[in-house]
Amino acid sequence: MEFLLNTPLACKLYHEHAEKMPIIDYHCHLSPQMIAEDHRFRSITELWLGGDHYKWRAMRANGIDERYITGDASDWEKFQKWAETVPFTLRNPLYHWTHMELRTAFGIDTILNAGTAREIYDRCNNLLQRPEYSARGLMRRYGVKVVCTTDDPIDSLEHHQKIREDGFEIKVLPAWRPDKAMAVADAKAYNAYLDLLASASDISIDSYDSLMAALQVRHDFFASQGATVADHGVSEFPWEPCSKADADTLFAKVRSGCELDSTEVKKLQTFILLDLARMNARKGWVQQFHFGPLRNTNSRLYVQLGPDIGCDTIGDWRSAEALAHFLDTLDNEGLLAKTILYNINPAENDVTAAMIANYQDGSVPGKMQWGAGWWFNDQLDGMKKQIDTLSLQGLLSRFVGMLTDSRSFVSYPRHDYFRRLLCRILAHDIEEGLIPMEEMPRVEQMIEDICYYNALKYFNWE
Amino acid sequence: MEFLLNTPLACKLYHEHAEKMPIIDYHCHLSPQMIAEDHRFRSITELWLGGDHYKWRAMRANGIDERYITGDASDWEKFQKWAETVPFTLRNPLYHWTHMELRTAFGIDTILNAGTAREIYDRCNNLLQRPEYSARGLMRRYGVKVVCTTDDPIDSLEHHQKIREDGFEIKVLPAWRPDKAMAVADAKAYNAYLDLLASASDISIDSYDSLMAALQVRHDFFASQGATVADHGVSEFPWEPCSKADADTLFAKVRSGCELDSTEVKKLQTFILLDLARMNARKGWVQQFHFGPLRNTNSRLYVQLGPDIGCDTIGDWRSAEALAHFLDTLDNEGLLAKTILYNINPAENDVTAAMIANYQDGSVPGKMQWGAGWWFNDQLDGMKKQIDTLSLQGLLSRFVGMLTDSRSFVSYPRHDYFRRLLCRILAHDIEEGLIPMEEMPRVEQMIEDICYYNALKYFNWE
Amino acid sequence: MEFLLNTPLACKLYHEHAEKMPIIDYHCHLSPQMIAEDHRFRSITELWLGGDHYKWRAMRANGIDERYITGDASDWEKFQKWAETVPFTLRNPLYHWTHMELRTAFGIDTILNAGTAREIYDRCNNLLQRPEYSARGLMRRYGVKVVCTTDDPIDSLEHHQKIREDGFEIKVLPAWRPDKAMAVADAKAYNAYLDLLASASDISIDSYDSLMAALQVRHDFFASQGATVADHGVSEFPWEPCSKADADTLFAKVRSGCELDSTEVKKLQTFILLDLARMNARKGWVQQFHFGPLRNTNSRLYVQLGPDIGCDTIGDWRSAEALAHFLDTLDNEGLLAKTILYNINPAENDVTAAMIANYQDGSVPGKMQWGAGWWFNDQLDGMKKQIDTLSLQGLLSRFVGMLTDSRSFVSYPRHDYFRRLLCRILAHDIEEGLIPMEEMPRVEQMIEDICYYNALKYFNWE
Repeated sequence: MEFLLNTPLACKLYHEHAEKMPIIDYHCHLSPQMIAEDHRFRSITELWLGGDHYKWRAMRANGIDERYITGDASDWEKFQKWAETVPFTLRNPLYHWTHMELRTAFGIDTILNAGTAREIYDRCNNLLQRPEYSARGLMRRYGVKVVCTTDDPIDSLEHHQKIREDGFEIKVLPAWRPDKAMAVADAKAYNAYLDLLASASDISIDSYDSLMAALQVRHDFFASQGATVADHGVSEFPWEPCSKADADTLFAKVRSGCELDSTEVKKLQTFILLDLARMNARKGWVQQFHFGPLRNTNSRLYVQLGPDIGCDTIGDWRSAEALAHFLDTLDNEGLLAKTILYNINPAENDVTAAMIANYQDGSVPGKMQWGAGWWFNDQLDGMKKQIDTLSLQGLLSRFVGMLTDSRSFVSYPRHDYFRRLLCRILAHDIEEGLIPMEEMPRVEQMIEDICYYNALKYFNWE
Repeated sequence: MEFLLNTPLACKLYHEHAEKMPIIDYHCHLSPQMIAEDHRFRSITELWLGGDHYKWRAMRANGIDERYITGDASDWEKFQKWAETVPFTLRNPLYHWTHMELRTAFGIDTILNAGTAREIYDRCNNLLQRPEYSARGLMRRYGVKVVCTTDDPIDSLEHHQKIREDGFEIKVLPAWRPDKAMAVADAKAYNAYLDLLASASDISIDSYDSLMAALQVRHDFFASQGATVADHGVSEFPWEPCSKADADTLFAKVRSGCELDSTEVKKLQTFILLDLARMNARKGWVQQFHFGPLRNTNSRLYVQLGPDIGCDTIGDWRSAEALAHFLDTLDNEGLLAKTILYNINPAENDVTAAMIANYQDGSVPGKMQWGAGWWFNDQLDGMKKQIDTLSLQGLLSRFVGMLTDSRSFVSYPRHDYFRRLLCRILAHDIEEGLIPMEEMPRVEQMIEDICYYNALKYFNWE
Repeated sequence: MEFLLNTPLACKLYHEHAEKMPIIDYHCHLSPQMIAEDHRFRSITELWLGGDHYKWRAMRANGIDERYITGDASDWEKFQKWAETVPFTLRNPLYHWTHMELRTAFGIDTILNAGTAREIYDRCNNLLQRPEYSARGLMRRYGVKVVCTTDDPIDSLEHHQKIREDGFEIKVLPAWRPDKAMAVADAKAYNAYLDLLASASDISIDSYDSLMAALQVRHDFFASQGATVADHGVSEFPWEPCSKADADTLFAKVRSGCELDSTEVKKLQTFILLDLARMNARKGWVQQFHFGPLRNTNSRLYVQLGPDIGCDTIGDWRSAEALAHFLDTLDNEGLLAKTILYNINPAENDVTAAMIANYQDGSVPGKMQWGAGWWFNDQLDGMKKQIDTLSLQGLLSRFVGMLTDSRSFVSYPRHDYFRRLLCRILAHDIEEGLIPMEEMPRVEQMIEDICYYNALKYFNWE
């Protein structure tokens, strides 16, 4: 039996349809610089353990000292500790990802554990010496067509320019992620950021309007560099009604270095996020909202290591009213862009899946999307729940499908993981009589659409 | 293999037990007028697309222009657009409902899509010309015994009287739905409603007490017309303690045309809802509470089309404390009627299932009920979760079973959908050894009970 | 087919590994006095229905009058009513528990119902006359190695001393449960408790510091009696920042007999709970937090019967931020003990499973644990969800496994229930190819670890 494909029909759907589709990775955190420089990895440790907070969390849970995780241990030592941890990750997605990546990137079918660590380490490192194992080489290996990175408005996008100038055959597009432009809770950090933004936009930022003018300059610049996708990350989805006058006042207050109280923060963030969303709509972009994580929960490690080190977690804020007010305001103005919502808390799956349907306006199929299982939900159960709930509350057929959201050049097997699961689910439904046999051509088309064509059309990358 | 019945035992349980049971549809939104007038449908479009916001949502998500959904397109055009959408609803309950309805109402086994649309449209419309396809004819076709409609206190119930006088063999009972009597958040609309209520009850409403007196008059009238069921729809379940003096003051305020603030609204609603529940208890009625939806989230379509047009959604308010305070207050006074709770947010399934058990008082089996999967949960997964969670947190055996909650005369296959699933689940448990074979007679009885007898007894319709 | 073991591999894993493991029941509510006195049960009614609120809830739901549940009916009458209820509990864990307990404790394979009630009643009661059916006899029957009871700081632990002195071969340890020391919401009851605590500790309690001093005396005493485990039960997990000065003031206020308002209650509880957690860390204990239930929701039965009578329910408070602040504060001070979190609301499963990973510090494998399905989740579906979600968000391999949390001497089959399910799940994963066959030795070890060795090491009971 093939991995995840438990019946002949599942195999057939996968091999004849899903597997053949190119990959569109419309949201990830790859380093544009590494692509521009066609980075060569010094070791599998750099490739695998350099920034993968999923693995770091697992190692900590397995009783591994921080020295071997983010500390000054050698590449070999770190790899060894990870290899010792792998057998304890059975039933965790890391176990599958690890072995799928070994197989597809390195042609290694050996199971990783303490006993096989050295052999695998050496084989991988040898392969990584080869030119085809560079950053671009790895992307080529996986049949990637389009990648969107995640970029701050102040980013020069020089690396994207370099990639284009080099004639790299995979489309690598910047994506607009202006989270820092609404991070008003920390006046000092915010003002430091505004100074950089002023410099990048060549607009002096001394009022709310000039903030927006500066962002518009950068938004236009991103567009000129091929961007058509925005992404917004929030913890609690903000909704605190705020007038323009309030926004002016609150912005002036924070710009002058004063801290806002928590209600003021929410008000100003609500106002900014609406304006950012309007910007996206006016350009015809796709906008994504990733909401719900509670970040930097471990202050000890935050002080040592900073953000994004495996101590973010699933928040449990309510989101329905905030989302509805936000989306309704934009829809009512005719300024609701094509939108993808990602919730972090699976207890909000049904809320989010039902929410998007309220703002489907018939302009394009699947204008409003509920994104693929995100972060803590990016595993078999989370993907299955997202596929099932989307099916029941909306139209699975119109789904733009999977993305990696990853910092790694070997995470593309996550698309394969998703595709196998999708084929398994649909084969099961046919075999169970839930989908009639006569619909087979529709199912085959649906698989190709979800794996590739829907995204291609949705993002206008045809 | 028969639909949903994946083993011989599942088939046997279904055909020998579930299938034979009549239908009691104790909560729906059928038009009493259409039953009274024995309405004839001009087309399948009127029957299917006239008021079905499930289909409207799916069409919008499929990129269909509003003109073909709720606009001025012709019946054929609208049907055509729906037919084009159907293949994209695979895995959504609409796909199953559509084909179950075609089969059971019209004897059509053809799959609906753009290619078969015209043929099916014409066949259905031809059949709809026949007398047995009138409103009453369709109800007869499905073996319905009792139907409860959903009626406002000011309703004259003239249509129910006409139905009775006609000697229609299916019991069509009014059900008391006094939501507008607690809709105090909009002073103007509320006062307009109170004027109608005053007129209907012949009681001048100038105080909280006279409001209750007027409602009591109508409650008595509903009882005289055969009503034994009440239904209350709320968004966030209200619980803000409120004294009688507060209620008097707040009522006077809103009655004088002043708007209440949000806390005042909750207080007055809490007080009114308790009094309405006491009314139900004193009559020995069954009361239902449908709680949790966030309504009218799309103001653009609300202005165009009004409420109930497919832009209500799943709210995520917390409900445990409010429910507990509310039910405890009534139980403590000996005024807790037989009660059915329906939650809209499946994340509150366990909370709701556990909640009912706190107020089971031993007076009758299953006095407190957790209602069948409601609205967004009225699909295979939602029904399965409700059946499973009820089993684990309470007594499935005592469940009063399925209802359509529908505006349509061809929604009865939803009962069949539920019954097939129920038989499948129980057959699976027996085949897996989770239920011993010796319990087969108990399982058979349980199926008949859940499909029919439990409701018959619970509502005293024997 | 054996119960729950649906394939030969599941059977093999169970019989060769899970079944052979002794039981460590690291959290339960057995009466130390009954163990000390080696209590003999007058009847199966005393054993089964004397304090089992699960059964009471089911009987109330089945329409049984309270007289036969907690009232003055005879043992036989109560048993008879329970027997009549059993067939209606199909699909509820009570059905499985009942028959597993009959089989393992009494060797009875007959299904309990109205027809078999008398025969089973008599057989059980006859067996209960035998010495091996005493409290200790029943514990021996199930291969129990260690049991932790649940004890108040003021408890003399005389029964534990007696048990030790008797040389009872099963380790029966006290566990520290200082909930009353933070029950500041009821000034009168709190002060009465503080007087008892003052007396038990021989420290006059007139300030926050003296409260802590008194608790420390008792904590030390518990340690001297072998305790290494603490347990804390809260409803909403408290987090309201509170300075030492505030704590002093608030404590003085409540100690003087004044009631605190709800914010003050939360502040003082936050402060106390942190100090209690620090105490646990300094001793190297394991601490457990059971959070989320909404208690005593039925005031009528509370007045009649008191707490713990089947009217506690699943609360739906948000917990993520409170947990994160609490755990982070302790981790940051280096005073976060080994910790087990149990959530009552399954909608918080992912939140809780993700939360523990933020505070895994690499010091020991699985330092932070997400506890087995608790209370309303202690059933097949709840256990499966906990196992699956823990697998996906953490390391199942490091899980310390099952506990009964029970007041009954015949609840040990719940361990067996869990073990069968665990073997079924892992066998399924191997058979499905989700776990490769080469990992079989790892899976076998993992099963033994989760059933026994992980807890043995985690609690230092080797």
